[in-house]
Amino acid sequence: MTLDDLLNQVDRQFQDSLDRLCDLLKIPSISTDPQYRDECRRAADWLESDLNSIGFSASVRETDGHPMVVAHGERSSSNILFYGHYDVQPVDPLDKWHNAPFEPIIVSENGQKAIHARGASDDKGQLMTFVEACRVWKDVTGKPPAGISILLEGEEESGSPSLIPFLKENAEELKADLAFICDTGLFESEIPAIITQLRGLMGIEFEITGPSIDLHSGMYGGLAVNPIQLLGNIVSDLFDADGRVTIENFYDGVLELEPLHKAQWDNLNFDQQGFLGDIGLQLPIGEIDRTPLEKLWSRPTCEINGINGGYIGDGFKTVIPSKASAKVSCRLVGNQDPRQIRDNFRSFVESRIPSDCSVKFINHGLGGACQMPTSDPMFEIVRSALTEEWQKEAVFAGCGGSIPIAGYFQELLGMDSLLTGFGKDNDNIHSPNEKYDFESFYRGIRSWIRVLYNSQA
Amino acid sequence: MTLDDLLNQVDRQFQDSLDRLCDLLKIPSISTDPQYRDECRRAADWLESDLNSIGFSASVRETDGHPMVVAHGERSSSNILFYGHYDVQPVDPLDKWHNAPFEPIIVSENGQKAIHARGASDDKGQLMTFVEACRVWKDVTGKPPAGISILLEGEEESGSPSLIPFLKENAEELKADLAFICDTGLFESEIPAIITQLRGLMGIEFEITGPSIDLHSGMYGGLAVNPIQLLGNIVSDLFDADGRVTIENFYDGVLELEPLHKAQWDNLNFDQQGFLGDIGLQLPIGEIDRTPLEKLWSRPTCEINGINGGYIGDGFKTVIPSKASAKVSCRLVGNQDPRQIRDNFRSFVESRIPSDCSVKFINHGLGGACQMPTSDPMFEIVRSALTEEWQKEAVFAGCGGSIPIAGYFQELLGMDSLLTGFGKDNDNIHSPNEKYDFESFYRGIRSWIRVLYNSQA
Repeated sequence: MTLDDLLNQVDRQFQDSLDRLCDLLKIPSISTDPQYRDECRRAADWLESDLNSIGFSASVRETDGHPMVVAHGERSSSNILFYGHYDVQPVDPLDKWHNAPFEPIIVSENGQKAIHARGASDDKGQLMTFVEACRVWKDVTGKPPAGISILLEGEEESGSPSLIPFLKENAEELKADLAFICDTGLFESEIPAIITQLRGLMGIEFEITGPSIDLHSGMYGGLAVNPIQLLGNIVSDLFDADGRVTIENFYDGVLELEPLHKAQWDNLNFDQQGFLGDIGLQLPIGEIDRTPLEKLWSRPTCEINGINGGYIGDGFKTVIPSKASAKVSCRLVGNQDPRQIRDNFRSFVESRIPSDCSVKFINHGLGGACQMPTSDPMFEIVRSALTEEWQKEAVFAGCGGSIPIAGYFQELLGMDSLLTGFGKDNDNIHSPNEKYDFESFYRGIRSWIRVLYNSQA
Repeated sequence: MTLDDLLNQVDRQFQDSLDRLCDLLKIPSISTDPQYRDECRRAADWLESDLNSIGFSASVRETDGHPMVVAHGERSSSNILFYGHYDVQPVDPLDKWHNAPFEPIIVSENGQKAIHARGASDDKGQLMTFVEACRVWKDVTGKPPAGISILLEGEEESGSPSLIPFLKENAEELKADLAFICDTGLFESEIPAIITQLRGLMGIEFEITGPSIDLHSGMYGGLAVNPIQLLGNIVSDLFDADGRVTIENFYDGVLELEPLHKAQWDNLNFDQQGFLGDIGLQLPIGEIDRTPLEKLWSRPTCEINGINGGYIGDGFKTVIPSKASAKVSCRLVGNQDPRQIRDNFRSFVESRIPSDCSVKFINHGLGGACQMPTSDPMFEIVRSALTEEWQKEAVFAGCGGSIPIAGYFQELLGMDSLLTGFGKDNDNIHSPNEKYDFESFYRGIRSWIRVLYNSQA
């Protein structure tokens, strides 16, 4: 068996691969909505059957929520756990879709063909790049690749409530030398990338109470405190003139970028104008002395995600409201301690509340940043495989977001993760008209073939 | 006829007066809700009939909205136009009422009897103090007092859309030497007051657009502007450390308090602790060098009445929203120019919006402050009458709010207004369990009797 044998088989059965992906896409496995519960199970069953037909030992595993699908190949000296999710985002607003979200169609645009459906990119197209690579392997060699296990969950879009208990209960079974996670994209839709650092998250909301009741602003204005004013002052105080967050000790634990990464990132020639232009902006914000990719990948942020107080309906109401609230999240990097950041944020707010007012907090997510061990040989194997397939030098990139599963694998299974993927910026994930390019699917399968070939050797 | 003849008659028919007020209160004349349209007309008809039975020449007058009621007595050398409104606030939340809002009951509390119903204080009880005084006058003298006209509208609680056209069309008929408006209260529920200055109002809302779409805060946070942050900065910038509004030229046209008023107001010994304590506060805000009553009555304000942006539902969403908005109103005093204030506010906001973001404004109310001519002899007549009746020195007070009708009378009919009233702070106007004390009703009628007696002489 040569690499070309495998790659040619990809080509030969690509239409069948697309057909199988379409079958999976037709199942409306929306995890946030209880009325699609049976459909989620149907997707799990479909994958169990598909993986068994490849020669894996696959089973649907019950949880308190949507089931997991776990598949094992033959154990090897070096073992990989591939992770993906079969659940998808809800579809609304439905009237903005050009096709029925669960009736996949092929669309040609700008010389590219793409499959359009909810879940095409996030995450069914992506997970099927790996599953189809394993099928090709089986079709050529007679059995699936050794040292491969697969874990597919059904709740990633709804906060993964069953995941942590499942990982804990099945730690011994699931632990491998490394996890593969295929849920990211090509840098600027072109350059293959392995994500080597993820930002963490601290989420919190707070509500300020000023007067005990809503007040008439004629009767009380000028003498009674307005909690919206207090809230505005807090929001404004969060940043100094250099774009830095002023929460006490906020930058403790933030690491300077390693020279190797800095060089790689500078070489990416990130198109800031295009990045901002795509969302109607021209002027970057942020810390005055940082490059754009540092701001997005290796520097922490503080963001007001929602603000609310007083009368916000049609028309007008001259009220001084009793309450005003905000939801806030910080993206974290390096060794920033999420719990400490949360405590310091609470102090920041509390110290700006007059003694006759009060504030209450609700905690939301809490997770530290992740750094991947790029010295692990698998990272270079994957990087080279991507470079070969995409004919562009693959990079170690950062990611502005948080991918909680990577943190759980580390904490609960002592296992690092290698994140790569083939999505494009215009895939419209989490939006109407989601798609996955043929190129993403095709080269994705071939990328994994190369990885498997070079690692099984 | 002596004053005592009249005052004794008030006592003799007080129960009948209460019965008539109850009849009017039973009519659910809610002007904001179209399903009560017929009830509003029924209230207008009731008043027309009641005023005719006193000997006025009264009629219901059509408008595009709810009708007006206009009544005229015999013309005199000096004529008064009494203004009131027969429409009432909606009742919700209904479950918070102790009685059915349109089934008036008498409740004894703290040695005081009160009539409980929607509209008892605002404004039916108050307008009926004047109407019943006229009835008593007729019952004793044989005809209603001379030089009195009455204008009752049905849309005060819903922005009075028919009022300005009606005043313009009927200016000659309605113009008098002075208007009486009975829609205010006793200072600290105890001291009779004539309102001699009202604050004006400038209302506006604005919406900032940053990114063209909502953004994922992992993918864009640190580089893309967040309009909620811009909004927080704007809100915070509105005030300096001394509590003064920083909008350009904001204090142009603000007048220093006349020494006479200042002395009167200082003598009121305003109970700031009680005023704030009633709404759960202890610490006054506002300009550092001003007394509480100046802050409430003679100094301008800037208030955020509503703020909104991003995700504000249950749970959490790590979004950088495309838009954020606020509704703002300024209470104006002296000769502040509402249009100029509005223009300067717009500039204030626009100058804080980066060039790649945008802001749009929606104008709301616009009205200048009102000062009443306290040198007009009627002011002293009323002040003395109130002092006699209430056995407390009546004061010339300010009012934090705006009462648009006073402005319209001035602009459209060249007529000043004298505002007094007998409401108490705990009347719960605009809230559940609205009431009007017997004392307010009784002494209110007698106060007007004294005014009529001393001005007809």
